[in-house]
Amino acid sequence: MDAPLLTSIQSPADLKRLSVDQLPQLAQEIRQAICDQVALTGGHLAPNLGVVELTIALHYVFDFGYDRLLFDVGHQCYPHKLLTGRLGLLPKLRTREGMAGFPDPDESKYDLFAVGHAGTAISTAVGMARGDELNGETNRKSVALVGDASIVNGVAFEGLNNAGTLDRQFLVVLNDNGMSISEPQGAMAAYFDRVRVSPTYGDFKKRARKVLENIPGGSILEEIYHRGGEILKHAIATDHIFEHFGLVCVGPVDGHDLPTLVDMFNEIKDIDRPVLLHAKTIKGKGFDPAEDDATAFHSPKPFTVDGCRVELATSGRSFTAAFADAMLQLMAEDEKIYTVTAAMGPGTGVDKLIDKYPSRTRDTGICESHAMDMCAGIAKTGQKPFFAVYSTFSQRALDQAFQEVALQGLPVRVCMDRAGLVGGDGAVHHGFMDISIFRPLPGAVLLAACDEPTLNASLRFMKDYDAGPSFLRYPRDSVAKTPFQSDTDCPPFQLGKANLVIAPKDKPDLVVLAYGMPVYHAAQAIESLRGEGRDIALYDARFAKPVDIELLRKVISADIPVLTIEDHALAGGFGSAVLEACNEAKLPTHQVKRLGLPMKWIKQASRSAQLAEVGLDAKGITHAIREMLSNHPAPSPDTAVARTP
Amino acid sequence: MDAPLLTSIQSPADLKRLSVDQLPQLAQEIRQAICDQVALTGGHLAPNLGVVELTIALHYVFDFGYDRLLFDVGHQCYPHKLLTGRLGLLPKLRTREGMAGFPDPDESKYDLFAVGHAGTAISTAVGMARGDELNGETNRKSVALVGDASIVNGVAFEGLNNAGTLDRQFLVVLNDNGMSISEPQGAMAAYFDRVRVSPTYGDFKKRARKVLENIPGGSILEEIYHRGGEILKHAIATDHIFEHFGLVCVGPVDGHDLPTLVDMFNEIKDIDRPVLLHAKTIKGKGFDPAEDDATAFHSPKPFTVDGCRVELATSGRSFTAAFADAMLQLMAEDEKIYTVTAAMGPGTGVDKLIDKYPSRTRDTGICESHAMDMCAGIAKTGQKPFFAVYSTFSQRALDQAFQEVALQGLPVRVCMDRAGLVGGDGAVHHGFMDISIFRPLPGAVLLAACDEPTLNASLRFMKDYDAGPSFLRYPRDSVAKTPFQSDTDCPPFQLGKANLVIAPKDKPDLVVLAYGMPVYHAAQAIESLRGEGRDIALYDARFAKPVDIELLRKVISADIPVLTIEDHALAGGFGSAVLEACNEAKLPTHQVKRLGLPMKWIKQASRSAQLAEVGLDAKGITHAIREMLSNHPAPSPDTAVARTP
Repeated sequence: MDAPLLTSIQSPADLKRLSVDQLPQLAQEIRQAICDQVALTGGHLAPNLGVVELTIALHYVFDFGYDRLLFDVGHQCYPHKLLTGRLGLLPKLRTREGMAGFPDPDESKYDLFAVGHAGTAISTAVGMARGDELNGETNRKSVALVGDASIVNGVAFEGLNNAGTLDRQFLVVLNDNGMSISEPQGAMAAYFDRVRVSPTYGDFKKRARKVLENIPGGSILEEIYHRGGEILKHAIATDHIFEHFGLVCVGPVDGHDLPTLVDMFNEIKDIDRPVLLHAKTIKGKGFDPAEDDATAFHSPKPFTVDGCRVELATSGRSFTAAFADAMLQLMAEDEKIYTVTAAMGPGTGVDKLIDKYPSRTRDTGICESHAMDMCAGIAKTGQKPFFAVYSTFSQRALDQAFQEVALQGLPVRVCMDRAGLVGGDGAVHHGFMDISIFRPLPGAVLLAACDEPTLNASLRFMKDYDAGPSFLRYPRDSVAKTPFQSDTDCPPFQLGKANLVIAPKDKPDLVVLAYGMPVYHAAQAIESLRGEGRDIALYDARFAKPVDIELLRKVISADIPVLTIEDHALAGGFGSAVLEACNEAKLPTHQVKRLGLPMKWIKQASRSAQLAEVGLDAKGITHAIREMLSNHPAPSPDTAVARTP
Repeated sequence: MDAPLLTSIQSPADLKRLSVDQLPQLAQEIRQAICDQVALTGGHLAPNLGVVELTIALHYVFDFGYDRLLFDVGHQCYPHKLLTGRLGLLPKLRTREGMAGFPDPDESKYDLFAVGHAGTAISTAVGMARGDELNGETNRKSVALVGDASIVNGVAFEGLNNAGTLDRQFLVVLNDNGMSISEPQGAMAAYFDRVRVSPTYGDFKKRARKVLENIPGGSILEEIYHRGGEILKHAIATDHIFEHFGLVCVGPVDGHDLPTLVDMFNEIKDIDRPVLLHAKTIKGKGFDPAEDDATAFHSPKPFTVDGCRVELATSGRSFTAAFADAMLQLMAEDEKIYTVTAAMGPGTGVDKLIDKYPSRTRDTGICESHAMDMCAGIAKTGQKPFFAVYSTFSQRALDQAFQEVALQGLPVRVCMDRAGLVGGDGAVHHGFMDISIFRPLPGAVLLAACDEPTLNASLRFMKDYDAGPSFLRYPRDSVAKTPFQSDTDCPPFQLGKANLVIAPKDKPDLVVLAYGMPVYHAAQAIESLRGEGRDIALYDARFAKPVDIELLRKVISADIPVLTIEDHALAGGFGSAVLEACNEAKLPTHQVKRLGLPMKWIKQASRSAQLAEVGLDAKGITHAIREMLSNHPAPSPDTAVARTP
């Protein structure tokens, strides 16, 4: 191999000094750097390996110090980051001091939007294009890089439909790897699959005529024909679906063929109307294990390569795994259960259910809104839909939960994985709003699991609860057992009833009411305070709606301080629901203190570091308890209220 | 005219007894009944006139007592309601005792989903089709009736993409009237416009071959060719956009030609794969004024027809009109302002801005998610986007407000019309969640207007506020002036500061803190209590985030009861924000009472009747104040706290 190139690239200006012949070597170095790092720390692998050449070619041709490059989803931004001066941040990938796993404007001016949710890049790019026009910067170019799994999301469709009305340069690069996050879903995926990498070299004029008929203002194509280069001319597609959206469609081209990509972008970049370049890529390109199993290597944990053997590091049993097993059990018991995921089969554990029950499961692709509505329709027929979705992505189905589910009173069961802080994925993936947004829905029930026994019990409750929708939350964490609960002694969930986890000896000095996983950390905190002679009760709240007002009445009437804890925003969250319920019941709340997420964005770090940062780990909770106890004298022991276990 | 038919139809069974020859007369009678009623009471007119024949033909052919008919948006359901036994409810259209303006399962088994938001019918129909399959009811047919404006919404696209994977009967009827709510927007609309009503009678086999290439499992088409009737054969479209979604596309056909529609549905209904029938209709068909101006007659107020002259009833000046005028003023002052609507130009007043500033405004079509993202992109370029949207539809852009706006800290200004109870449109259109869902967003500011001066002042505040997004709410109501505020003496909005509206004489017995329009009703209530010798202060809260904690500190420290009032859900709403802020500031809240919307769905009625129902009119507020005062002795007069006006 020649002298290394990557270390010499501090910015795209350095890239532009290379010859096209040198670019494949650079691609190889970028691939190697990413593979080595992800093996050490985990991170998004296959998506990044697939876009190395596309990213190099884009930066080689455009000037993204001025032009606009918008990433869709953003998990494919590593090559871009390495080309824009962030090689030095790579060793601390996905930590606070290192490179974020998603685009981050705080990190570089080359990152325009912090993103992580799919389908948004075309729409924000349309906005920037319009804004640049208004600012008189008509020559400032816009490029959106979108994967084939993202482009079927509703907002991407909406964006395409509106992009088609732009009367200026606008480029959508469709990175079609045929299986963006897991397997592609929907008819569109089948369509993409049929479109092969085979620019047809037929009679261009005949094809152009047909294109003209389909594109408003299509006479621009005649101009392109005369002005455009040979490659572009022959690559214009005349039967592409996105033609109907008003875009000039080019390709499919080989997304790993650097010289062609450079030529293509050079010819496309000055076309002053919306263009879609359809590039076929291989997810995981260049790293055999990732090419073979792009789903497993989409965002792997650390791994080791030993000859041909690749071993993924394992950690404790996750809530996700526990959910999958619980659902396998429930689906075996009740044949009316139907389970849905929106392209997050591996992430939610639903892939296991799909394997076992292919006709009673569905992956809708990245279509959370549709998935919620489909569940509504299924529930209407008397079947029992469970929608497994990340908390942060459930935000995309709020309006459907409002109208098509809650207004109809339909028992759709929404199981929200990754609720709360999520660790390395950072701000774009935290699930901190699910309580606030679903709580106002009349008839909705909100519940949470804190460990595997409660996860099992909560799902069983949801299966049988058919008076309306139910929303369950659980974190991206291990199902570490609390020392206080075994698999067998977890009482069934009762609507709106909290569960005593640590019983007080007598009338407690403090009652901790924790919602979900914080029960575990609160138990640790109480354990650590055991030597300090105070009597503290811990309840697993179980329900954020309805809250256990009878328990609150007993505790507050006895003048016992209450600490609520949640891995969720304080605004409108569980503690807020407690305050509201107390207010409604005319119970004073001056002795109620709420712990939860502060009103700020929490950046990437390990989940435990993030919990510590916001005071939701055992140490933070211990501190909060001590502070409360120091403000409150121990109450008189005559009116013990907590239930016996 | 022959003997009347409509009055003899109690259910679709009666319809099926008519001959096809009689159907045009029935259509004429349905049209007349709808026109007469809407002239008296207002309601959706043009959309209903456009689907009379489609609805008759569907009920004539299918059996929707068993089969599934899903309406998209639902404002086109009047003919359906008249054919399913609800002629008697028509005279009380859109009132509690009468016919709801949207489908309502509580009204009839023929209404499957209560809807009002666009784009959902395909997705819920997909769900029902899957559920029916699971129940073994493979012959239970599914039909979704969708307008061309709805089908460009993201969830409709997601639904189509997933419908294409169904392996059974499934019919989407595309009601293409070319201008569903107002003017069509986006490239797709231009596409529809080019597709004329002209089934091509060319060589079917040649076309079928092409279709085969595009549709997975396309060999079914050969079967259709052999099995299908002559009309269907010749109407199959081979270059339709939705072919790419895996649907067999038929048409366009004339959506007012009853005999053809009946034949067509008869031929289509047994095809066991997804079909889209593209029907061209005329919005407002059969009523000349509505055909001429379908936008004005989309959902008119009552009107009178005097020969050729049609006069729409007028009511007081609306917040919508005031918003439009305020924005005209601001856009004249600040050329960086860019205003966006999602197909609600007339409803939000943005149509006036589009007329005046075509290059600084945009109607995205029914694409709320895209509109929010486009605003994010525009804000990123330094322009000042204002997104005017109904509160209830803002729910469809929550995830975009979360990631693309708030996470980036972008100053997108969201102006939410029809916040609170909306009157005749009923539960599907109430805006009761906007505070709860946007309040958890870090950096977001939430404010409300209670009359025209505060609307003007709040918009001016938003124009200059660039530290993050701002969310303004105002109701579907008249800007009745409070007797206490003139156009000129409205002080500018200051971040997080409430405004004293009725000053106490001394230390007040009660402080009312109202958010938005309830200020007006609270002022009336206080006026009505004037003779009772109690001293009540009224503040216009102005901000739900941040709340005026300094004011609360002063009032609560002085042991004065506080009544919060909001036209919004209590769960997570303004009063909840007050409780949280007090809790954080260690202020007791046992003397704080919250008035707001209860946890239930409020059905159609006049807005004033709805406000009375939930106790948010002057009478209800008066009652709440009296009750609070009866529980609290008048405080001692030594610590007056309210600011002088």
